[in-house]
Amino acid sequence: MSREVDVAIIGAGSAGLFALSQVRRKTDNYVLIEGGELGTTCARVGCMPSKVMIQVADDYHRRSIFEREGIDGADELGLDKPAIMEHVQDLRDVFVDKTLGVTDALDETHLIHGYASFVDGRTIEVNGEHYKARSIVIATGTVPIIPEAWQSFKDDIITTDEFFELEDLPASVAVIGLGSIGLEIGQALSRLGIDVTGVDLLENVAKLNDPVVNKLAVETISREFPLWLGEAAQLEKTAEGIRVSSGDKAVVVDKVLASLGRRPNFDQLGLENAALELDKNGVPQFNPETMQCGSTSIYIAGDVNMDRPLLHEAGHEGRVAGYNAVRQSGVAFRRKTGLAITFCDPNVATVGTQLGQLDESKIAIAEMQFGPVGRALIIGKNRGVLRVYVNKSDGMVLGAAMACVKGEHLAHLLAWSIQQGMTVFDMLKMPFYHPVIEEALQGALYGVLSELDTKQELVELEML
Amino acid sequence: MSREVDVAIIGAGSAGLFALSQVRRKTDNYVLIEGGELGTTCARVGCMPSKVMIQVADDYHRRSIFEREGIDGADELGLDKPAIMEHVQDLRDVFVDKTLGVTDALDETHLIHGYASFVDGRTIEVNGEHYKARSIVIATGTVPIIPEAWQSFKDDIITTDEFFELEDLPASVAVIGLGSIGLEIGQALSRLGIDVTGVDLLENVAKLNDPVVNKLAVETISREFPLWLGEAAQLEKTAEGIRVSSGDKAVVVDKVLASLGRRPNFDQLGLENAALELDKNGVPQFNPETMQCGSTSIYIAGDVNMDRPLLHEAGHEGRVAGYNAVRQSGVAFRRKTGLAITFCDPNVATVGTQLGQLDESKIAIAEMQFGPVGRALIIGKNRGVLRVYVNKSDGMVLGAAMACVKGEHLAHLLAWSIQQGMTVFDMLKMPFYHPVIEEALQGALYGVLSELDTKQELVELEML
Repeated sequence: MSREVDVAIIGAGSAGLFALSQVRRKTDNYVLIEGGELGTTCARVGCMPSKVMIQVADDYHRRSIFEREGIDGADELGLDKPAIMEHVQDLRDVFVDKTLGVTDALDETHLIHGYASFVDGRTIEVNGEHYKARSIVIATGTVPIIPEAWQSFKDDIITTDEFFELEDLPASVAVIGLGSIGLEIGQALSRLGIDVTGVDLLENVAKLNDPVVNKLAVETISREFPLWLGEAAQLEKTAEGIRVSSGDKAVVVDKVLASLGRRPNFDQLGLENAALELDKNGVPQFNPETMQCGSTSIYIAGDVNMDRPLLHEAGHEGRVAGYNAVRQSGVAFRRKTGLAITFCDPNVATVGTQLGQLDESKIAIAEMQFGPVGRALIIGKNRGVLRVYVNKSDGMVLGAAMACVKGEHLAHLLAWSIQQGMTVFDMLKMPFYHPVIEEALQGALYGVLSELDTKQELVELEML
Repeated sequence: MSREVDVAIIGAGSAGLFALSQVRRKTDNYVLIEGGELGTTCARVGCMPSKVMIQVADDYHRRSIFEREGIDGADELGLDKPAIMEHVQDLRDVFVDKTLGVTDALDETHLIHGYASFVDGRTIEVNGEHYKARSIVIATGTVPIIPEAWQSFKDDIITTDEFFELEDLPASVAVIGLGSIGLEIGQALSRLGIDVTGVDLLENVAKLNDPVVNKLAVETISREFPLWLGEAAQLEKTAEGIRVSSGDKAVVVDKVLASLGRRPNFDQLGLENAALELDKNGVPQFNPETMQCGSTSIYIAGDVNMDRPLLHEAGHEGRVAGYNAVRQSGVAFRRKTGLAITFCDPNVATVGTQLGQLDESKIAIAEMQFGPVGRALIIGKNRGVLRVYVNKSDGMVLGAAMACVKGEHLAHLLAWSIQQGMTVFDMLKMPFYHPVIEEALQGALYGVLSELDTKQELVELEML
């Protein structure tokens, strides 16, 4: 049996659903195919449940400032861990339900449950049925990476795909991999009284590229739980639990949280039949402004393409892929300025071009240490640093990295400014209220003026 | 005795100090004159100590979410009110000390302690000495308003000028005047267990002009303590305390916090000798882009001119006044987009042009109710609303009002966008991370697209 459709979207996660929103505007002859559970990675096991757990952990951790503030009884606070997990799961279910609204409304001619595999570049098979599609959108997402060597420890290893299903929390955890997810969950668990050890092969956390920001982030977070950086983790089964070692350090823990990243979910896709050119990681080559794979009628969007595994980028890519797929077109849309936030405390965020991609002789760095920042002092979180990379010749703001309180908001201001091509002078003309964390950015920008190759008179005028 | 100077700055508060920073770049022949205590209104009795008290109150109030989150023992928390006031005063002293850095470094030929009064438009007298100045900057700030009729209750009335000096907090307070300060302090006191009643002659709080936002703010804040709106407060001394009535409602309280606004501090200035044109409130007429009073050599900056009594505007005005005063010039600097934030919970903020100044037939309102906003749900603060005023014909964003969690940050993004003349389409191209409160703005903007007089095809393309 064979059916002809205008567009087949493989994967009903965030990217697939955003693609669908565009496709439906132009045609009713489409299929959305999902082999796994419905509900997005973000809502089920990603952004959302992690933020709920972080919120609880941060609220509990806040007691550490109570004595200074004149609030008594911090020591009387305790945790009901099963209740915390239930709260996390309750809210997660709310968020998952929201994402299900779209698929719930689709009938069986539009939503196909089953794993899709390519027969050829225009045909896919699902549950024994062939779908010949004018365009195909690959949006199959990713799965957590677990090294081959760790297969024998499988029962002791949790990934974030299972983590939020736990009914209680283990007493001790080694978090292996200190990217955003590892850092977020590791700190949250530590704040919830779990004995946490963080391990990463790299010296930098949350993919930070700026040594000053990385140093501050590592030092600050290390005050709460140990971060073992720069050597690979080795696992070993013992009678007491699982022994995690890194160089000359070792700890025995109940569970290992594997947060080593995620790989594209191509497992049952038969990608080899699609006649696509693959990159060295086995991902189809595609144009990031059109989402089109070469000059084929196949588009690829979301985490699966390994380019920008972030919800807001998956949304953008899904829309672009859907827009082009339903038109069989290759309309290019400008990408958004890079923005990545790790919701640990201090927030770690990067915006625009990072230090490693810049010629340091051509830039000036606007830096603000948060020690004297008024609002940060009031909040009691004035260990932080913001670094903004500025083109010396014309004052253009190119990128930024930060580890600081409310970094998530500073990062938005900076990302919007950079995307608009603003200079330091442009930014200083904007209002900075008082007393707000945004003033740290203002201070950093004022501080860098004298390092720019701009006429001093002009600088003085602008410094108003 | 008489001395000739290039610039005389009257008032060593925020505006005066910012003026000084400009003046000193061009001349050493200046005087800074201060009759009262050194240290700015902001640091001594304004923005800073209020934010410290709000921070403590919010941290304590957060216990109301603990049970839902699985944190036990919220009922065991208590308050040590004298310790809270000591904490407020400790941090306030840090902030005041910072502002004193500048004046501490001035010798007695530059910093004059005493009250200045105009002899004529170019001459002022301080402590019997005459200063003939090429330019004069008036930056004398404001003092709290207390109605004449209340003079007999003086012992029971506190203003914010005295409030942060208290060593303990009264058991009950009526807050009269629900502008920013009244709302902030009223809610903070209520959260600190004080029996608070808020009263205002107006129906709207925090100078809100948008009825939808005002309604939400009033309803939400009223859940914590009563707000009596729309009728003037009457005071009466009784044996039990001071009786505050408003219409048919009355309460007896220990203290009244008078937060009715502030008036220009002209008391000893002899303004009548300066030959300035005054407006109907007795404030010298001035050009808000040059800060110059008519074509005189007198400039007026900061709260005293009653235009924009906000620290960041006082800073800007001080710089402009100082820049022009030292040059005897009238260089015009563009004003910043209006931005006002009340740090209550939910944050109340207004940006740009407000509803009352707009022709409602020509605008579309991008509105987002915070109920389903993911991050707001996670924080447990999803009672909120954001309203953005958009020009129907071209999608230009003109202004906004909001009462919502993290409104202080949304307000900055909006203010910067408006100042740059961005349209809804421009803003939607910017990155909105996930899950962040900024997504509420994104949702509001998407929602308004269909109401704009723009070609549908373009809208669809932009809606990507």
